[in-house]
Amino acid sequence: MPIDRIAIFGTGLIGSSVGLALRSKGYTGEIIGWDPNAAELAVAESSGAITLIAPDPIKAARDSRVILLCGPVFTILEWLDRLEPVLQSGQLVTDVGSVKGAVCERARARYNLVHTAGFLAGHPMAGKEVSGAANADADLFEGAAWLFTETTASRSMHPASRALADEWRAWAEKFGCRVLDLDVARHDVLCAWVSHLPQYLSTALSALLEDEFPEKDEMLAVGGRALREMTRLGGSPFSMWRDVAHTNTAAIAESLFALEQRLAHLRENLKTPELRAEFERANRFRAATAPPKK
Amino acid sequence: MPIDRIAIFGTGLIGSSVGLALRSKGYTGEIIGWDPNAAELAVAESSGAITLIAPDPIKAARDSRVILLCGPVFTILEWLDRLEPVLQSGQLVTDVGSVKGAVCERARARYNLVHTAGFLAGHPMAGKEVSGAANADADLFEGAAWLFTETTASRSMHPASRALADEWRAWAEKFGCRVLDLDVARHDVLCAWVSHLPQYLSTALSALLEDEFPEKDEMLAVGGRALREMTRLGGSPFSMWRDVAHTNTAAIAESLFALEQRLAHLRENLKTPELRAEFERANRFRAATAPPKK
Repeated sequence: MPIDRIAIFGTGLIGSSVGLALRSKGYTGEIIGWDPNAAELAVAESSGAITLIAPDPIKAARDSRVILLCGPVFTILEWLDRLEPVLQSGQLVTDVGSVKGAVCERARARYNLVHTAGFLAGHPMAGKEVSGAANADADLFEGAAWLFTETTASRSMHPASRALADEWRAWAEKFGCRVLDLDVARHDVLCAWVSHLPQYLSTALSALLEDEFPEKDEMLAVGGRALREMTRLGGSPFSMWRDVAHTNTAAIAESLFALEQRLAHLRENLKTPELRAEFERANRFRAATAPPKK
Repeated sequence: MPIDRIAIFGTGLIGSSVGLALRSKGYTGEIIGWDPNAAELAVAESSGAITLIAPDPIKAARDSRVILLCGPVFTILEWLDRLEPVLQSGQLVTDVGSVKGAVCERARARYNLVHTAGFLAGHPMAGKEVSGAANADADLFEGAAWLFTETTASRSMHPASRALADEWRAWAEKFGCRVLDLDVARHDVLCAWVSHLPQYLSTALSALLEDEFPEKDEMLAVGGRALREMTRLGGSPFSMWRDVAHTNTAAIAESLFALEQRLAHLRENLKTPELRAEFERANRFRAATAPPKK
């Protein structure tokens, strides 16, 4: 039985982009939206990202086949708690949270049981440094990875929920994503290095420059692409990244500490042959991750 | 008397881009090129960045009105030494080096005297993470700043050289640059923060990730725009950045140390309200440096 009614909880950048991507890729069912921010909901509705605004989110969840939880990680955790008692097998909850350990732990023992809804933990590796429904984009997921961290529990979800989970994975592919399965713990370590570290680094650099240059005219006149690029993520919202910091703390702290040591190493070797070795390693990384265009 | 013959020493990315920009903006004189790398010279000639290859760089300099020194800072310093005895007033040497203190110090007492050539220290804030004449671009300087650090000495250069210096500044404007004058010491501190720090940071991050992920498949599958952007400068060549590290060491070390402390501060505050304050500072910086598009 195909997905014909989806509830999107959290109609900001990602939630609204999912709604627009569904429409753009031929989804014809209902999309009912809910968000604590009425303005976000209104933008999502007028853009066509959602079909209608849920007057009552609990009732909307109860009446939907798939409930997509967006927004910050703690908000996802709260909804996992609140929705479990009102849902049942044959329904599917899935999410887009940036940290999967905390989310899967919260879902464990409550979802994927014989009589409860299925839970499929997901994470599209797409985003912008700006938030909100107004920045949503049907093509946001094109070429990105959509990660899933199935667990022993989710693999044994009710067959009616499993059918929805498989259909949802197929939608992610239709959005243009490479769908990938990862172990939960590995996901959080990997994301600490390739996503969370770049974010907190850009935040720290931007905050440092804000203190260093209260007057920006001269700096702005001189700064070029390197500066703009390294500080772009400085615009990212605290609300989302606070929850990531709280739920993936150890892995993030480890990657930050490693970078601090690496910067100190480079600083102590500005005039030694070790600087060449660091550039060679960095050149190898760049060549392997962004091969020169032909 | 207009500039009718320019010698470009170092026909890599910047040198060749200057040649192409001159042509594109209507320069009709000769451009004679020299580079230690014969392959670079051949590419520069075949792309039209230079009119001809100098058989003898000293003679080429002697016969030119303007000599543009490109390449790494130490190479610029060497040419300042070698060219001074063969040039005279009515000629102008200018450069594109990323560090200006060392360059202006070397030129002091040798240039801008009654009988010697003029020296105008310049620095276009443009570049790419890839080097070489093959990556040169007539539009590379469009919208960038071209910094000049005039000194008491350069302000009193011979009037015939001054006319060339003024014409050269006008060419930089024709390339699409905002021409800016900065104090030499201020230039080097400012560039340490907005250009050198982003470079060494991206190098350190890329080198760290190279060590952390010898196998890149998984990381590449997961990594998105944030990772690509923060490591783009990891591709930059050591040859250029070694000389920057050697000639602007104190300012770079200071900015690196400040960033190390800032990262440690953020790491120690992943779960405290101070994280919000850092995001707010970073958001302010981003809003002031890249106002949202309307």
